[in-house]
Amino acid sequence: MKTPHHESVLSRAARILEAFSQDEPALTVSEIARRSGLHVATASRLVAELVAHGFLSRDDDRQVRIGVRLWELVTRASPTLSLRDTAMPFMEGVHDVVGHHVQLGVLNGDDVLFLERLSAPGAVINYTRVAGRLPLHASSSGLVLLAHGPVSLRERILAGPLTTYTPHTPATPAQLRAILADVRQQGYAYCPGYVHEEALGIAAPVRGGDGTVLAALAVIVPNDASAQAVVPVVRTAARGISRALGST
Amino acid sequence: MKTPHHESVLSRAARILEAFSQDEPALTVSEIARRSGLHVATASRLVAELVAHGFLSRDDDRQVRIGVRLWELVTRASPTLSLRDTAMPFMEGVHDVVGHHVQLGVLNGDDVLFLERLSAPGAVINYTRVAGRLPLHASSSGLVLLAHGPVSLRERILAGPLTTYTPHTPATPAQLRAILADVRQQGYAYCPGYVHEEALGIAAPVRGGDGTVLAALAVIVPNDASAQAVVPVVRTAARGISRALGST
Repeated sequence: MKTPHHESVLSRAARILEAFSQDEPALTVSEIARRSGLHVATASRLVAELVAHGFLSRDDDRQVRIGVRLWELVTRASPTLSLRDTAMPFMEGVHDVVGHHVQLGVLNGDDVLFLERLSAPGAVINYTRVAGRLPLHASSSGLVLLAHGPVSLRERILAGPLTTYTPHTPATPAQLRAILADVRQQGYAYCPGYVHEEALGIAAPVRGGDGTVLAALAVIVPNDASAQAVVPVVRTAARGISRALGST
Repeated sequence: MKTPHHESVLSRAARILEAFSQDEPALTVSEIARRSGLHVATASRLVAELVAHGFLSRDDDRQVRIGVRLWELVTRASPTLSLRDTAMPFMEGVHDVVGHHVQLGVLNGDDVLFLERLSAPGAVINYTRVAGRLPLHASSSGLVLLAHGPVSLRERILAGPLTTYTPHTPATPAQLRAILADVRQQGYAYCPGYVHEEALGIAAPVRGGDGTVLAALAVIVPNDASAQAVVPVVRTAARGISRALGST
């Protein structure tokens, strides 16, 4: 079905796109070649083709970036845009009241992928970024998605390894099973210091019209006793988004 | 430099991505073939390859969409993400006070391309979308970008044609020249009914560290006398974003 040659061009194009990151959005051709494991001549030719199609762009100083045209094509028809657009006013409301960080995450592979994040200046430390990822077992959003996700996924994650970030990160299958049962029973995840000692995540499920959990809404606040008061805010907003998506 | 065959694969991949839009984010292979002008067999083979690389995804019901993996790759290294992230708290502040729509646009080709939009429920009509476009001469954001853009661009747009949306849209080169002079002199664009009779756009320039205009911040409010009070809010926020970007 596929000719090796076709596969090869798209496969190499994919490797080139993967060379860019939020920390390094601009690279030279030789950096791209090194990161993508391609010969410089091959990388150079492919970058030129990708630039010609607007997938990449090249500055006056030879730095290559993701092209604005590609961003536009992908964003305007993004599979996540309508979810994000529906959630946005609710997220803004939570952000007005709670401050710090409000974020929306979806299950993608064995991770939570964050579609949106609103942050206040001076907010508590938070490793999340738009289009960033965190492991399912360690983050409040991930625990909500895992608790309501497929059994096969849960068994795979429970089989480990469970990376720990602090002494509070769930580290054993037994701990994780207990937490997931709590998340399902209480209707939210409450995670003091799981990813960073100073931060506490609270997440609640966002459901679609058929009741399926589509996303997790989370706030990240300082890890102290005042966080408990935020729980009803997060749960209410997550229910609001679910209602707006047609859930009853 | 390019082999026709390589060019052809990426060129056809680009045409396939271009087939998707915000109104039609999910298409069947035959719809994709029709929109991209490819034979169904060719489209089918390329879609399969793009699905294999995560550029597209296919549902159980055979609907094809932009892949979440591609969204992630493009978004995490987006050339516009740092601008958008810097602007976001200022945009939220304006949105809290003004309501309706707050949006951030950049110059792209002969259009304004919108990177972000915050909208309130029940806000005035607005054709802008995230990753959507408007012509430069008709929108408040576009007029700010055009007023501060390259002379060659200005001359090209002034040479027309100037599409009109209402009787208030600038329709002649003389009208447009006068408006652009006002925008430069006043420091903002004020556009009652240019795109829709009921809406009024107000936009101000966002400048980078070297003083270059990088973007336009705009609000869209109802087309009435109360709009004038919004001007200082928009100008202040645009200055704030500029300061945060290093402008003095």
